[in-house]
Amino acid sequence: MTYAVIMAGGVGTRFWPKSRESRPKQFLKFFDERTLFQNTVDRITKLIPPERILVVTNQQYVDLVQKQIPELPAENIIGEPIGKNTAPCIAVAATIVKERDPEGTMIVLPSDHYITKPDKFLSILQAAVAKANEGDNLVTIGIEPHRPETGYGYIQFNASEHEEFEGTPVHEVVTFAEKPDMETAVSFLKSGDFLWNSGMFIWKASTILNEIKVDLPHLYALTDDFLADEHNGGMLRALDNFYRNANDISIDYGVMEKAKTVYVVPGSFGWNDVGSWLAVYELEEKDKLGNVIKIPDARLINSSNCYVASDKKRFVAVVGLQGIAVVDTEDALLVARLDAAQDVKKIVESLTDKNTEQYR
Amino acid sequence: MTYAVIMAGGVGTRFWPKSRESRPKQFLKFFDERTLFQNTVDRITKLIPPERILVVTNQQYVDLVQKQIPELPAENIIGEPIGKNTAPCIAVAATIVKERDPEGTMIVLPSDHYITKPDKFLSILQAAVAKANEGDNLVTIGIEPHRPETGYGYIQFNASEHEEFEGTPVHEVVTFAEKPDMETAVSFLKSGDFLWNSGMFIWKASTILNEIKVDLPHLYALTDDFLADEHNGGMLRALDNFYRNANDISIDYGVMEKAKTVYVVPGSFGWNDVGSWLAVYELEEKDKLGNVIKIPDARLINSSNCYVASDKKRFVAVVGLQGIAVVDTEDALLVARLDAAQDVKKIVESLTDKNTEQYR
Repeated sequence: MTYAVIMAGGVGTRFWPKSRESRPKQFLKFFDERTLFQNTVDRITKLIPPERILVVTNQQYVDLVQKQIPELPAENIIGEPIGKNTAPCIAVAATIVKERDPEGTMIVLPSDHYITKPDKFLSILQAAVAKANEGDNLVTIGIEPHRPETGYGYIQFNASEHEEFEGTPVHEVVTFAEKPDMETAVSFLKSGDFLWNSGMFIWKASTILNEIKVDLPHLYALTDDFLADEHNGGMLRALDNFYRNANDISIDYGVMEKAKTVYVVPGSFGWNDVGSWLAVYELEEKDKLGNVIKIPDARLINSSNCYVASDKKRFVAVVGLQGIAVVDTEDALLVARLDAAQDVKKIVESLTDKNTEQYR
Repeated sequence: MTYAVIMAGGVGTRFWPKSRESRPKQFLKFFDERTLFQNTVDRITKLIPPERILVVTNQQYVDLVQKQIPELPAENIIGEPIGKNTAPCIAVAATIVKERDPEGTMIVLPSDHYITKPDKFLSILQAAVAKANEGDNLVTIGIEPHRPETGYGYIQFNASEHEEFEGTPVHEVVTFAEKPDMETAVSFLKSGDFLWNSGMFIWKASTILNEIKVDLPHLYALTDDFLADEHNGGMLRALDNFYRNANDISIDYGVMEKAKTVYVVPGSFGWNDVGSWLAVYELEEKDKLGNVIKIPDARLINSSNCYVASDKKRFVAVVGLQGIAVVDTEDALLVARLDAAQDVKKIVESLTDKNTEQYR
């Protein structure tokens, strides 16, 4: 059977003040009446029923996850006591999937991306699942790049040959590349055989655990302990021991870059990692002046290419400004140049004293 | 005896959202713990006791005036039922002053200006009072200009001769000039014999009433009616009849430009008419990056020459912006380029529909 494993443990700071420690990006609504996390679940439920969707999140968000997706069985929500990056998260999820179904396949998905073409996305996923089930294959999804982005990792694929699954080509991965500089990113884009690393993976639970056994033996040993602890003391205690002892390491660095053979399914399905307020602005529909106004009452005078949003019924006026974001919440307000929106995280990082920690 | 007549009827819109129809600029605090109106009264009480200070304001602000200056006798607050510019306001104040003291002199002062050198201001006023009392003289205060401002009226004075009152020179006025274009303003500044029209006037009540009798006979007739109405039906009814029938006209246009002889006392006492958020920003003390932050909790990242103020205990962050004003109030928020701050009035002018009139 195929399972989905949705990673929803992130504590992003780039959407402050709308995102807070208590309510990170994936649990917020940006584009419609569903949160990014809900969108992620909604997309995948066309392939996989809620009983086979696992969500790995921070312990403090377990209630939020349950509230946002009530149909999710409580035992499918895994609360991490400490975030330790993707390798431990995937290891524990694989252990649980394998326990439920020794032949089980899992689709690992981030929960804070936006996808404008969900049907195309699903057909790409189905090809990836077919390739994963064909043997003990590690499969990932690569996004066809359309700009020389320096903020993402890249995947180079073998363009000279490929298999097809119901018309969708699947390639062998040549190499994984870290975030490039601009010159390198331009050459990647030109080459035609580099894709953006989407952080989505498809494999049998047993396959990834075998790979972890080779590449991260310490982590693999912890999955054995986890099973024993779970049977003896229950899930909470098992998770506690596991995360206390696991190292902070990504699946890309810990496994994918070391694995002998990895496959990638290239896709173009309107993927956006929603990395900053600028990305949100770019995804929204604009008025004639390029403004995005997400409140009922606002006045923009001699202003263009602005993003204006408020949680509250407050009136906002903007005069003589271009390319800024105004994000207004109950207790905190952000005014930022949209092309400096990546610096929003610096605000959050600075909220460390007694007077300001309440705004984190 | 000398009286002060403080004109506090303005309904300025350039300080929205801090200023509202119900609380215009002169009744707001900008620089210290006193409002501009309170500052005005505080300055003049060194010369004139509260019993001889009259305040002419709109009827809806009478309670606000009384609250802001409790020591002001209630009968010294004149509530205009309709604003009709400065000539009716001064005519009615002169009538009341003359009624109390037929020989009374009056100092007419706007209530929404800021003066950084109040002692220098008072010595200029004293010379003006001396000149006014010397005979039936109309006296005004002119501000020594330091930039080619196109937003003010100008006063040309006779620089070739002057009198002195305790060391303060008093000149005859050659002409009053309307707001000039930039070229003209530059030539005014160069000439050395042009001053900014401050809207401050000093004269005996009888003198200005005689001048009104010649230049604005209809208005003069209304002052006779006013006295009769006041004796028969009381102040409220007298004011009602007076303002209903008075024409909307300024004292500059109606009287000063027509009067045969007017005197001017040039002064330089840190005068500022506080015309926009830019003026407020310029008057405030700045930090090293040129920022003015009027709230306890704020973060400015890569931002300079900004003005940030909030009525509320709210946290404000600004990222990557130069020269903007952020003015945050309970129900409305302004984000404006400081050098476009004069356009703030356009917002208020646009708040005419059912949803937005509450923010006026």
